[in-house]
Amino acid sequence: MASREDSLIARYFRPLATDAGAFALGDDAAVLRPSGDDVVVTTDAIVEGVHFLPTDPADTIARKALRVNLSDLAAKGATPTGFVLTLALRAADHGWLEPFAHALGDDAGLFGCPLLGGDTVSTPGPLMVSITAFGRVPAGKMIRRSGAKPGDRVVVTGTIGDAALGLDILKGGAVAAALSDDPAARRMLAERYRIPQPRNALATAVRDHAGAAMDVSDGLAGDLAKLCAASGVSAVIDVPAIPLSAATAGLLARRAIGIEAIVSGGDDYEILCAVPEAGFDALAQAAERAGVAITSIGTVIAGAAIPGFLDARGREISLQRFSYSHF
Amino acid sequence: MASREDSLIARYFRPLATDAGAFALGDDAAVLRPSGDDVVVTTDAIVEGVHFLPTDPADTIARKALRVNLSDLAAKGATPTGFVLTLALRAADHGWLEPFAHALGDDAGLFGCPLLGGDTVSTPGPLMVSITAFGRVPAGKMIRRSGAKPGDRVVVTGTIGDAALGLDILKGGAVAAALSDDPAARRMLAERYRIPQPRNALATAVRDHAGAAMDVSDGLAGDLAKLCAASGVSAVIDVPAIPLSAATAGLLARRAIGIEAIVSGGDDYEILCAVPEAGFDALAQAAERAGVAITSIGTVIAGAAIPGFLDARGREISLQRFSYSHF
Repeated sequence: MASREDSLIARYFRPLATDAGAFALGDDAAVLRPSGDDVVVTTDAIVEGVHFLPTDPADTIARKALRVNLSDLAAKGATPTGFVLTLALRAADHGWLEPFAHALGDDAGLFGCPLLGGDTVSTPGPLMVSITAFGRVPAGKMIRRSGAKPGDRVVVTGTIGDAALGLDILKGGAVAAALSDDPAARRMLAERYRIPQPRNALATAVRDHAGAAMDVSDGLAGDLAKLCAASGVSAVIDVPAIPLSAATAGLLARRAIGIEAIVSGGDDYEILCAVPEAGFDALAQAAERAGVAITSIGTVIAGAAIPGFLDARGREISLQRFSYSHF
Repeated sequence: MASREDSLIARYFRPLATDAGAFALGDDAAVLRPSGDDVVVTTDAIVEGVHFLPTDPADTIARKALRVNLSDLAAKGATPTGFVLTLALRAADHGWLEPFAHALGDDAGLFGCPLLGGDTVSTPGPLMVSITAFGRVPAGKMIRRSGAKPGDRVVVTGTIGDAALGLDILKGGAVAAALSDDPAARRMLAERYRIPQPRNALATAVRDHAGAAMDVSDGLAGDLAKLCAASGVSAVIDVPAIPLSAATAGLLARRAIGIEAIVSGGDDYEILCAVPEAGFDALAQAAERAGVAITSIGTVIAGAAIPGFLDARGREISLQRFSYSHF
């Protein structure tokens, strides 16, 4: 009696539904048990040809779909508790579903974020993976975009700009040509595009020490502008302090790319936060323990101006493009 | 500095974000405050050309997207608390977005289910609306598929089969021809397809009196089989007792359609539940107070057989097709 849709869910996704509240995907809804904590809810979808490439392997699509949501939870200071999945497929292709589900299960285990439920639908169009993820924070403790104060340090995790360059490489663009003799760098940057590294290991420290935070998904410049606008402040960024991978730094040094490709590219999935001076050392120590690099790249200032990006001589760099927009 | 995407969200969707936990859609995540209740989570997506027609108006698409999720909450005995929306659009078409958001807001108000957050993405493919909805039930009280017991009555709300006939009409099929002289019936059936009537008014009574429940979305026969399988029981259904609208009953009486079109069609979004005899009167009284028709259509029996559908003479009707499957 089971439909093909049910069989598909049982075969590929039931093994990922390890939480009791998922009822082994055998019911119409899942349950989040009350813990006294706030439930933090975030939702992000990725579409073939828009957020990932038609040539991307199934396993990296799965990881990206979950990780872009985990990245939001991390930036909000939340501990992951589970997710629901909507998968729009052209066909039930077992050669695709097997590695997709396997990688999704791997990441669900790695980040402690089990599958709670979902919906599998057919589409005549591009593949789409929509995830709604849940986390928990002590009541009232979600870190907002809006808590940045003048004098706070502007801090980012990891390195900035790699993923946008990786996308250019995967599309065979100018960056691919500039790195034609460096396959390791090409591979590293492409992987940064395909498999974000959400900073969930730092979530509790962000919650304890940051005044405001968000993840960098649409480009550092645009996302910082959003954080500043939500907080009613401005910021100045010391561009040479922005942490870059060796590959990205090399491309910039030999002018194969400009700074805009770095600060306005998307898909970084690093945490951007505003940290009061008094909390910075504690955050830095927590980051070291968590094995996550953090870098102070500027300062929150009073005012409503768009954040300024200053070069090594303190001159403002004019950015034509701040971030990626879908429309 | 706001991107076009942000402007679109602010213009059309911020007015729907009436819950404090939505932060006026100005942050990366929403918050569900702890209430001591379980949070019930359900997710359902609708895709243009699959779950709705390319010619369906924006307002009915919005209502259907939310209502298919509300229907799940109702069947689980949960009170709606909010939803997140993922909208995949080919373009930011204001003539479409305005009625879409307006109708979505209307229904959010009508059902007490405010918008908490979302993601708007571009797609080169069909329009897709994916919603994850939240409800609450006292801890441990979600009504499962798995609680049906031999001797329980099989009960459905409303009428069965109308929506599948409405789809046929909208596609200009045989039902449209059979009702060529009855525009009112054609309109009613088409509306049943386009705008489900989720039975949230009956949710608390279902929670109090049903042993098992689910909503009928993929056809009564198939969904009853799922409920029985989850409960480890079977059932016999008295087909003449299945509640039909006058239009559907008329089509059946003059053999313009067969019983299979009714019991195996999809999109009913009525509640199917198993109710212990001792609870039936109380459920019936609650249904009357709520203004929702309920009908007892059969009995849960022991065994693992696929539920039997019996005609007026008690003979089993052989069904070729039990439900709709996407793959």
